[in-house]
Amino acid sequence: MITTSCKNKEELQKKYESMLQRYEALKLEGLKLDMSRGKPSKLQLDLVSDLLGVLVDPKDCIADGCDSRNYGELSGLKCAREYWAEILGCKPSQTFVGGNASLNLMYDVISKAYTHGLTDSPRPWCKEEKVKFLCPAPGYDRHFRITQSFGFELIAVEMTPDGPNMDAVERLVQDPAVKGIWCVPKYSNPQGYTYSEETVNRFANLKPAAPDFTIMWDNAYCIHEFAGEFEPFPDIISLCEAAGRPNMVYEFASTSKVTFPGAGISVMATSEANIAYQTKLLGVQTISYDKVNQLRHVRYLKDKAHTLELMKKHAAIMAPKFEMVLHMLNEELAGQGIAQWHAPKGGYFVCVAAMPGTAKRTLALCKQAGVTMTEAGATYPYGIDPQDSMIRIAPSLPPIEELEKAMQVFCTCLRLAALEKMLQD
Amino acid sequence: MITTSCKNKEELQKKYESMLQRYEALKLEGLKLDMSRGKPSKLQLDLVSDLLGVLVDPKDCIADGCDSRNYGELSGLKCAREYWAEILGCKPSQTFVGGNASLNLMYDVISKAYTHGLTDSPRPWCKEEKVKFLCPAPGYDRHFRITQSFGFELIAVEMTPDGPNMDAVERLVQDPAVKGIWCVPKYSNPQGYTYSEETVNRFANLKPAAPDFTIMWDNAYCIHEFAGEFEPFPDIISLCEAAGRPNMVYEFASTSKVTFPGAGISVMATSEANIAYQTKLLGVQTISYDKVNQLRHVRYLKDKAHTLELMKKHAAIMAPKFEMVLHMLNEELAGQGIAQWHAPKGGYFVCVAAMPGTAKRTLALCKQAGVTMTEAGATYPYGIDPQDSMIRIAPSLPPIEELEKAMQVFCTCLRLAALEKMLQD
Repeated sequence: MITTSCKNKEELQKKYESMLQRYEALKLEGLKLDMSRGKPSKLQLDLVSDLLGVLVDPKDCIADGCDSRNYGELSGLKCAREYWAEILGCKPSQTFVGGNASLNLMYDVISKAYTHGLTDSPRPWCKEEKVKFLCPAPGYDRHFRITQSFGFELIAVEMTPDGPNMDAVERLVQDPAVKGIWCVPKYSNPQGYTYSEETVNRFANLKPAAPDFTIMWDNAYCIHEFAGEFEPFPDIISLCEAAGRPNMVYEFASTSKVTFPGAGISVMATSEANIAYQTKLLGVQTISYDKVNQLRHVRYLKDKAHTLELMKKHAAIMAPKFEMVLHMLNEELAGQGIAQWHAPKGGYFVCVAAMPGTAKRTLALCKQAGVTMTEAGATYPYGIDPQDSMIRIAPSLPPIEELEKAMQVFCTCLRLAALEKMLQD
Repeated sequence: MITTSCKNKEELQKKYESMLQRYEALKLEGLKLDMSRGKPSKLQLDLVSDLLGVLVDPKDCIADGCDSRNYGELSGLKCAREYWAEILGCKPSQTFVGGNASLNLMYDVISKAYTHGLTDSPRPWCKEEKVKFLCPAPGYDRHFRITQSFGFELIAVEMTPDGPNMDAVERLVQDPAVKGIWCVPKYSNPQGYTYSEETVNRFANLKPAAPDFTIMWDNAYCIHEFAGEFEPFPDIISLCEAAGRPNMVYEFASTSKVTFPGAGISVMATSEANIAYQTKLLGVQTISYDKVNQLRHVRYLKDKAHTLELMKKHAAIMAPKFEMVLHMLNEELAGQGIAQWHAPKGGYFVCVAAMPGTAKRTLALCKQAGVTMTEAGATYPYGIDPQDSMIRIAPSLPPIEELEKAMQVFCTCLRLAALEKMLQD
């Protein structure tokens, strides 16, 4: 896959010195650039700031006879549930609209599984001798950390361009201690892969040994194309229902990358039995979520068609950044056998597989030159990339001029680390 | 306390028949009135709806160099922490500003204690053989339900006009299985009692056997006077610090009854060590809370002085309702030995102690006549009032005309239930 070109040591040493010179020059610039997190840019925030003004008249706060300003409607405003059902392709009765963070809804599901069990659990997971959780890797560090925080054993599953290695998944779920799996099915974090139809169907038709095995289907980038048209995607909920395990999947989404990352609305979608079960448990912790913000969002986003139009405007801001990243990777790293990557059509990341054993070193070099990236290893369970190879690039936050500079630094550091490694070997 | 007057059976029977007639007449009116929950009224919601329009310009979304629209600042915007510190009389570094529900922050503390333990816990509470929790009763049903949902044993502690019976509390905390207590220190739910200075000091100086014994100090009505001036109240956090157990207390408050019940902001205040510990745990479940709404609130409420002015306007709406309730109770029930109550100066409730054995019957009669009240027993652990006596009246939601009618029904039902009881005995 990644092979060291046949150069003699002298040539390598020369290359290394020239790269080092370039690196030292970049270091002198005293940069302070951040490509660490999938944060929307200020331009994107400004793009959607009309959201702030769509709900200012108290008369507008009433929706379907419910005053959004007061307590009540734990599972969300009717119009908000309808909005999300259209986006996800499920029924409103299969949705639960929460607060500003889908991550919190995911945590709630895992936390409730631990303390109380899920719909089909024989007992709470804290009463199990051992709980194992599947983590397609590279994946999203915050997912892994939730299950790690409850002491579950995290099992890495190889990611392929079609999604997780389903042969491995089907084998692993035969173990009754394996209670679930994390998935980002569309534009996966960090590689930007979209699960194939076959993968999705194999998920829906899983026959795990644990009766309460749970697919955590984080559809974070369900409408987040930045290149090309919106890509329809199968509804996992009806597929699981058709396959006879309707309670096996919880799907999640939010407007964190549609409107405001810190101040959007979130949704959990699952079988009606799961909705009823979780609503009962969530009713102990809260009276209701922020329905004013739910209504504000529905008024602003309207429906799927209107939201997709807005996503085109986000794409217009995002696309040049991804093009820049991919252009730089091609210019600087292609054909040298020191890095591989996939060009995604949506999502928030580009993932570079550096020469094994060089990811940490690359990012340490970046840091010394003032460029912050997601920590090496972060995309693997326990923060340990066994190959020390995967690097996540998050191009969304910096303005494009800064991004170009940051990518110059990154590519230089990656090449320098690869040359160091080749000289050592 | 409550004594049956010495009437002969015939007189009682006559009284009963006349009361029954009055009840039947009220039933015929086909009422549909709700005094079940401490929900602010539409007038109060309209009073504060300028909140919706104070943050519409994207330029206004930046506070202390932080863009409230983006991810970050898990423990809350600086200005929001300063706002709450002034309200509660503690330091900003002792605050954590959350989402729309302080109940959720309380749940988080108990849930984390169960799954991970608290700052001074030898182990997570789920690993303890038994966890007991003190519940001053009558109290708030949602508090009790949180601890019940984790399987803790709830121990009722008698409420007095000065707060919980502290002799009992000091005795009970000698048991290392007793891990905490629920408190509503100002205008307690439902009786409207404010803890005396002595009670507060005895709380701060508790020496519980459990090193992680936790006072859940729900200061829900900290600025919620509806009669008279704002009453200053001691800062429990510095008192616990001075007494040498700084990590023993978590205080909570929210704007649920200042701005919008479903769409306000909440705060948790505690020692800096506890803030650091909880921030680490909460950082697993969420990236940040809704800072746009935090900023919207700070812009609208400004500071303590300005907020207290607003609370005067709430009081102007609330006071006539409480006066009506107390007037009706006096007119209909005083001096008959069938009910007792306290006239509170703040909070959201009036609590009536009916003749033992008549609370359930009273509320069943109310229901048949179309008046919904908080379920009998709800203010006691496990929903069981051993005396079947306490009834919580929530006068805030209905318009005053409806309230008068509802109170007519309530008083009639209570008298009818008392007469039935006296005829049986």
